[in-house]
Amino acid sequence: MQPSRQALTPCLAFVRPIHTPVKIRMPQISHQNLQTLLKQVKWNDAGLVAAIAQDHQSQEILMLAWMNDASLQLTIETGHAVYWSRSRQKLWHKGESSGHQQVIHDIRLDCDGDAILLQVEQVGSIACHTGRRSCFYRTLGDKGWEENAPVIKDPNDIYHLPSKD
Amino acid sequence: MQPSRQALTPCLAFVRPIHTPVKIRMPQISHQNLQTLLKQVKWNDAGLVAAIAQDHQSQEILMLAWMNDASLQLTIETGHAVYWSRSRQKLWHKGESSGHQQVIHDIRLDCDGDAILLQVEQVGSIACHTGRRSCFYRTLGDKGWEENAPVIKDPNDIYHLPSKD
Repeated sequence: MQPSRQALTPCLAFVRPIHTPVKIRMPQISHQNLQTLLKQVKWNDAGLVAAIAQDHQSQEILMLAWMNDASLQLTIETGHAVYWSRSRQKLWHKGESSGHQQVIHDIRLDCDGDAILLQVEQVGSIACHTGRRSCFYRTLGDKGWEENAPVIKDPNDIYHLPSKD
Repeated sequence: MQPSRQALTPCLAFVRPIHTPVKIRMPQISHQNLQTLLKQVKWNDAGLVAAIAQDHQSQEILMLAWMNDASLQLTIETGHAVYWSRSRQKLWHKGESSGHQQVIHDIRLDCDGDAILLQVEQVGSIACHTGRRSCFYRTLGDKGWEENAPVIKDPNDIYHLPSKD
């Protein structure tokens, strides 16, 4: 006999899958203040700003992506990083395919207003679509760009791609 | 009687002004490898890539600027950060006016090849033209963007601007 949902609920409260992010309290911003802060961002001709994602604990730089006003608003409202995919020309909730979401701890704006810094908790410890921790996995060496970090998880497994065999 | 320069030299070897950067050994790259690595960067339609400057020790993000191929080449060759100023449309040797140069410790390229990460020693501990440590001195709070860092040095003193009086 299956236990009722009601009976299960108290037990489930203690069961949280590994890597499930804790949502951080985001600033409680009024509609008017939200519109003001969005206007203070200096969007480029395509309506975008560069957004750096940095691990909030290790301070490692994970990636650089782009945001439009809708993605910044969603990031603020959901507490998870939402970017604008320039290649797909659509909103990109980071981790929507991979599960590797980024939980926002802090959002900063630079002096010129044209760059944003997200301090995040990287779910799954993988930010890069290549399966590496950081997108900045190439370092300049004597012979040019040299890889500096291993693939943690095969992208085929991350994105559940069919085998090439 | 003034000591001769020859006599002074051994003593001066131990006198180094505060904040004078030590030049780090940069990769020794052949002309051919340099041309190859520059081609591996994915320059945008304006011939630029975003470049993040990060303190090589504290891992603090100092600023985001832009580079063209000439500025990246100069950065590699000189060991100091050279950007492309979009507002002035010219090469910008960081610190040329302020003295706040950035000594390169490491140069990284991201997975897409369209973002660069410089790990630097920030001369004078000030990266921002406002006189703050980092350009990312505004943090999102309940009322919008709130300043999170003090001005270390008055920009008028940094850039030797005439008094407004």
